[in-house]
Amino acid sequence: MKAVRLHGYHQQPVVEDVPEPKISGPLDVIVKIGGAGVCRTDLHIIEGQWADAMQPTLPYTIGHENAGWVHEIGSAVTNVQVGDTVILHPTPTCGLCHACRAGNDMHCEDSTFPGLDSDGGMAEYLLTSARACVKLDPSTQPKDVAALADAGITAYHAVRKAIPQLYPGSTCVLIGAGGLGHIGIQCLAALTATRIIVVDRNPEALKLAEQLGADHSVVADGTQIQAVQDLTGGAGAHVVLDFVAEQGAEQDGFAMTRPNGSYFVIGYGGELRVPTLDLISTERNVIGNIVGTYTDLAELMALAQGGKVTLHTRTYPLEAAAEAVADLDAGRVRGRAILVP
Amino acid sequence: MKAVRLHGYHQQPVVEDVPEPKISGPLDVIVKIGGAGVCRTDLHIIEGQWADAMQPTLPYTIGHENAGWVHEIGSAVTNVQVGDTVILHPTPTCGLCHACRAGNDMHCEDSTFPGLDSDGGMAEYLLTSARACVKLDPSTQPKDVAALADAGITAYHAVRKAIPQLYPGSTCVLIGAGGLGHIGIQCLAALTATRIIVVDRNPEALKLAEQLGADHSVVADGTQIQAVQDLTGGAGAHVVLDFVAEQGAEQDGFAMTRPNGSYFVIGYGGELRVPTLDLISTERNVIGNIVGTYTDLAELMALAQGGKVTLHTRTYPLEAAAEAVADLDAGRVRGRAILVP
Amino acid sequence: MKAVRLHGYHQQPVVEDVPEPKISGPLDVIVKIGGAGVCRTDLHIIEGQWADAMQPTLPYTIGHENAGWVHEIGSAVTNVQVGDTVILHPTPTCGLCHACRAGNDMHCEDSTFPGLDSDGGMAEYLLTSARACVKLDPSTQPKDVAALADAGITAYHAVRKAIPQLYPGSTCVLIGAGGLGHIGIQCLAALTATRIIVVDRNPEALKLAEQLGADHSVVADGTQIQAVQDLTGGAGAHVVLDFVAEQGAEQDGFAMTRPNGSYFVIGYGGELRVPTLDLISTERNVIGNIVGTYTDLAELMALAQGGKVTLHTRTYPLEAAAEAVADLDAGRVRGRAILVP
Amino acid sequence: MKAVRLHGYHQQPVVEDVPEPKISGPLDVIVKIGGAGVCRTDLHIIEGQWADAMQPTLPYTIGHENAGWVHEIGSAVTNVQVGDTVILHPTPTCGLCHACRAGNDMHCEDSTFPGLDSDGGMAEYLLTSARACVKLDPSTQPKDVAALADAGITAYHAVRKAIPQLYPGSTCVLIGAGGLGHIGIQCLAALTATRIIVVDRNPEALKLAEQLGADHSVVADGTQIQAVQDLTGGAGAHVVLDFVAEQGAEQDGFAMTRPNGSYFVIGYGGELRVPTLDLISTERNVIGNIVGTYTDLAELMALAQGGKVTLHTRTYPLEAAAEAVADLDAGRVRGRAILVP
Repeated sequence: MKAVRLHGYHQQPVVEDVPEPKISGPLDVIVKIGGAGVCRTDLHIIEGQWADAMQPTLPYTIGHENAGWVHEIGSAVTNVQVGDTVILHPTPTCGLCHACRAGNDMHCEDSTFPGLDSDGGMAEYLLTSARACVKLDPSTQPKDVAALADAGITAYHAVRKAIPQLYPGSTCVLIGAGGLGHIGIQCLAALTATRIIVVDRNPEALKLAEQLGADHSVVADGTQIQAVQDLTGGAGAHVVLDFVAEQGAEQDGFAMTRPNGSYFVIGYGGELRVPTLDLISTERNVIGNIVGTYTDLAELMALAQGGKVTLHTRTYPLEAAAEAVADLDAGRVRGRAILVP
Repeated sequence: MKAVRLHGYHQQPVVEDVPEPKISGPLDVIVKIGGAGVCRTDLHIIEGQWADAMQPTLPYTIGHENAGWVHEIGSAVTNVQVGDTVILHPTPTCGLCHACRAGNDMHCEDSTFPGLDSDGGMAEYLLTSARACVKLDPSTQPKDVAALADAGITAYHAVRKAIPQLYPGSTCVLIGAGGLGHIGIQCLAALTATRIIVVDRNPEALKLAEQLGADHSVVADGTQIQAVQDLTGGAGAHVVLDFVAEQGAEQDGFAMTRPNGSYFVIGYGGELRVPTLDLISTERNVIGNIVGTYTDLAELMALAQGGKVTLHTRTYPLEAAAEAVADLDAGRVRGRAILVP
Repeated sequence: MKAVRLHGYHQQPVVEDVPEPKISGPLDVIVKIGGAGVCRTDLHIIEGQWADAMQPTLPYTIGHENAGWVHEIGSAVTNVQVGDTVILHPTPTCGLCHACRAGNDMHCEDSTFPGLDSDGGMAEYLLTSARACVKLDPSTQPKDVAALADAGITAYHAVRKAIPQLYPGSTCVLIGAGGLGHIGIQCLAALTATRIIVVDRNPEALKLAEQLGADHSVVADGTQIQAVQDLTGGAGAHVVLDFVAEQGAEQDGFAMTRPNGSYFVIGYGGELRVPTLDLISTERNVIGNIVGTYTDLAELMALAQGGKVTLHTRTYPLEAAAEAVADLDAGRVRGRAILVP
Repeated sequence: MKAVRLHGYHQQPVVEDVPEPKISGPLDVIVKIGGAGVCRTDLHIIEGQWADAMQPTLPYTIGHENAGWVHEIGSAVTNVQVGDTVILHPTPTCGLCHACRAGNDMHCEDSTFPGLDSDGGMAEYLLTSARACVKLDPSTQPKDVAALADAGITAYHAVRKAIPQLYPGSTCVLIGAGGLGHIGIQCLAALTATRIIVVDRNPEALKLAEQLGADHSVVADGTQIQAVQDLTGGAGAHVVLDFVAEQGAEQDGFAMTRPNGSYFVIGYGGELRVPTLDLISTERNVIGNIVGTYTDLAELMALAQGGKVTLHTRTYPLEAAAEAVADLDAGRVRGRAILVP
């Protein structure tokens, strides 16, 4: 089969023929890929930023945002059947550790991450696990939803955790209206009645944000903290969802958070510096966020199938992977690039 | 009446005669003081550290940890009567803002702080509000419980917030077994079945910690992070309660927190520095903590009256305030110094 | 001033001149009424059904759903000023008992209920308390929102409690699309992405329900339990909100609830009978619901001011109170009848 | 191997030789039984009360409270190894349905119940699943803890759900200080600082209750509702845990619950009858409770290994199963009867 393979860091991945994956374990599932998202993390993988943490054996197939149809199943698989349309949670989990048993499977002690530490989904077929498969309505087009598999659940997971603080009359600031952020706005609008203020450097992104449900938009031009203070009577926001968290956004985000409020970190790259006096005198929280759980993904798909979360996508044939990667790197992709085998 | 008055920063307060306070508002309450705690914050007040934030008019009476008996009440007071034994929440609140109405009165938009911004309780009588009075069993000795009014509810408030994470089989690290910390240990033991690891520089404090319920004690001699890792199979603690949060304890505390765990900041003075990548890749939280609510104090008094939280105290006559302050400053007070008018 | 007064049970109330109320306590507030809702409970009051429970002294002024403008305030009132537009929580509370301090003021140990146990708001002026006043945007018309004061917060309170169970992909059944129910539908649509099934005997009410956000409507013609089972794959709903809870609806509602789900009782009049085996084998809950808290009302007003909850009203001059009552009794009021002095 | 087999309803089970179970699925685990609890449910099984619900094929081996040592494992088992000491959750679950993925595995759509619907643990060996195994400290004696596998987690699960309502100063009534109830008392004492009132008909059981942590005991002699009212200032308890829920206890339990409180149903056999007016006017809840989850069992074992929950047991050799059953039926067992193969 065709697959997009990385042979060396700082080199472009190449499309080449490799053997199809085979079932070996009782919970294995092979999925025929219908859509594989191209993510900024793929750029970081190519640059070698994940090499130490994930230690994949090169060459290997990248692609960690995948959806398609079940092609073959192991002997103990009961939740999906051959032919089912599925979206795949990015990290197949063990199902037996405390985190998995508590419904908190993203903290599984023994998970894998196809596309980062083993062969991923930019290929005709992917080997995954029954535990990663969320069954979809058969009318769903995998290429339309693939990007929800990773970008989507990360945004959804953070919003879901913030809901108890986002009662009517509250304010939520969302920093970064890009790939994850624009899903976050839709999740906020679908699940809360909070007032949504979106902060971004890019006025174009802010226009889209307003169409998706933002009540106010603020250009991050150096006056953004003051703008949020002005919009909140000087108090700040009950919740700040920071999809950037680098290049100073992390300090802005904490500063925009009101007393007794919570600053949610979703992006990364920066360093947060906070005097402990500021934490205690205002009783503010800093909340870390990772990709969501399996049930988060199932819930997000319910939102998507109800038309409450939609994605802007641009499809490329699998063979054009290099072009898709280059377009993403150059900022030429509006929405999400999706490879279709 | 006699009162302990601060006439100038960097001077010792003096005991002198001042007029008794008078009822002026309908919810005013005058309390005959039975015990007033001497707190490290009083040392900071004398040093002028709170001058800017609180802007009291000098001279004024210090003392913000108070208990006694109701002496006189305003026209609209219904919750206490003259003669009732009471402990006083440190910050009389407005009762009408959103925070007060939501049961979150510590974030009141219009509270006062007797002893910091107005006349406090190191005196024969204190003017406070009906909203600050927690009625006690008449057999309670105010001098035995006064220190729960501020040190106590701060520790209780943090422990109470942590309870949902402290299921049986979890581990809680508590940094700093001093005035607040030793109440925190007792609250943990009363309200959870978590495993308690106490970290302190002082081996004497650790001995007391073990008597109060610590399962393990760790001397903070530079090996404390490793010691906690060893005690937790390398994972870290589900919750870290940091009563120090300065001089490096804040970095230790975050490092001792396991993935998906929470680092509670209660002490202050230091600066927390965390790469946002560390927050998101492990989904850890940093939780700010301030003094507790009115209901926190009421609940803590239920623990105290049930014998589940006890205080080590040393009493001084009001006239010996300077001696008490000097003893505290010199580290000569074991437990809490209490002035008794 | 003019007021609608009840002189005897089973008699129509009459409009007559009475003295204006006077401020006597420090937290008293006199409100010039802009709109007073006519509620089915008023019919029950006239019939004497509340005589024993509330023991008002006849004659007295009815009306417990009120909004208007602040006319005069007591000496300790700080949250509103003369001229402010306000909606009134139905039960002024003490502010000092444990329930009030915990933000759970509807369980106040010392509240009053104007319109049921003392003079209410079908009058030109009403005596209430600072604690009952929710300040509104000055552009708000009291007659447009008055019905949210009682019907509204009851529906809102129940929906808010149910939110954690109503994740995307869940199903909520709402029984009774009348005065409270049609607000409940709007609250569900504003605050959750659950699938909403509305059950009512009246096909007209179901049409309105669909316009307000119901995904499915079911006529209560004897097949309603089966219809809900069919719509939920035989499982039942995660939450059932029962605004009827009499004449068999209470048994239907419990039967429509899925294992591990919750049946919320909001209406009343019937008797629920459940074998304890059915409760434990399916782990279902029965959740009682009363009128909401002060903060519930504040939050609901945020929804209303954002256009997410709207009321159908028909206004009558205060003098036409008897006509409004008769219209309501005869089923001639579409939406809510509002008296305007 | 020897096994206790039921050949017909209303007959005593017999000890006979049967083939040892064999591994067939990848997650299968065979456990060498070290202790099997004899439960009142076993009496009901013999009487045929579970025949319709569970439809076992006779003859089969009973016993659903089991602990022992892992004897053999299937190809995909990773959480236990041969030789590990384990206690077994009573219902092996699928691990793939929504309930399992959400950490709520007791509502698994595809679980089995060995000892009720298939061969159980009153035998030398039991076939179960990796998902049912909780690994224990090797020093644990299976016979000492087996009864926690079913009776224990049911009590623990209910107490754990009640914790948020059981703050210091609250009151909890526990009805029925028998097999489950006496574990419930210990869990309450370990996990909360609530005041515990135990109600039972049997003065002997109440004596034990007091030793285990009850603050007050009330003989259920017809005056029990009044006694609870007297102990709670007329208000009732914040939580009532009813381990009986038949023969009128269910009406008592609801009547003992204070406004805004919750009545937890754990026992069964009776019928609860409540006017919906009583539910709404006081905002009381009725909470159904089933056996706990896998993580509940893991947490309970942490309590047991810390010495905070202990069981009174009487051991019998497996061959004496008939005697144990007869002793239980005749009320001659103090604590729990445990069969040891």
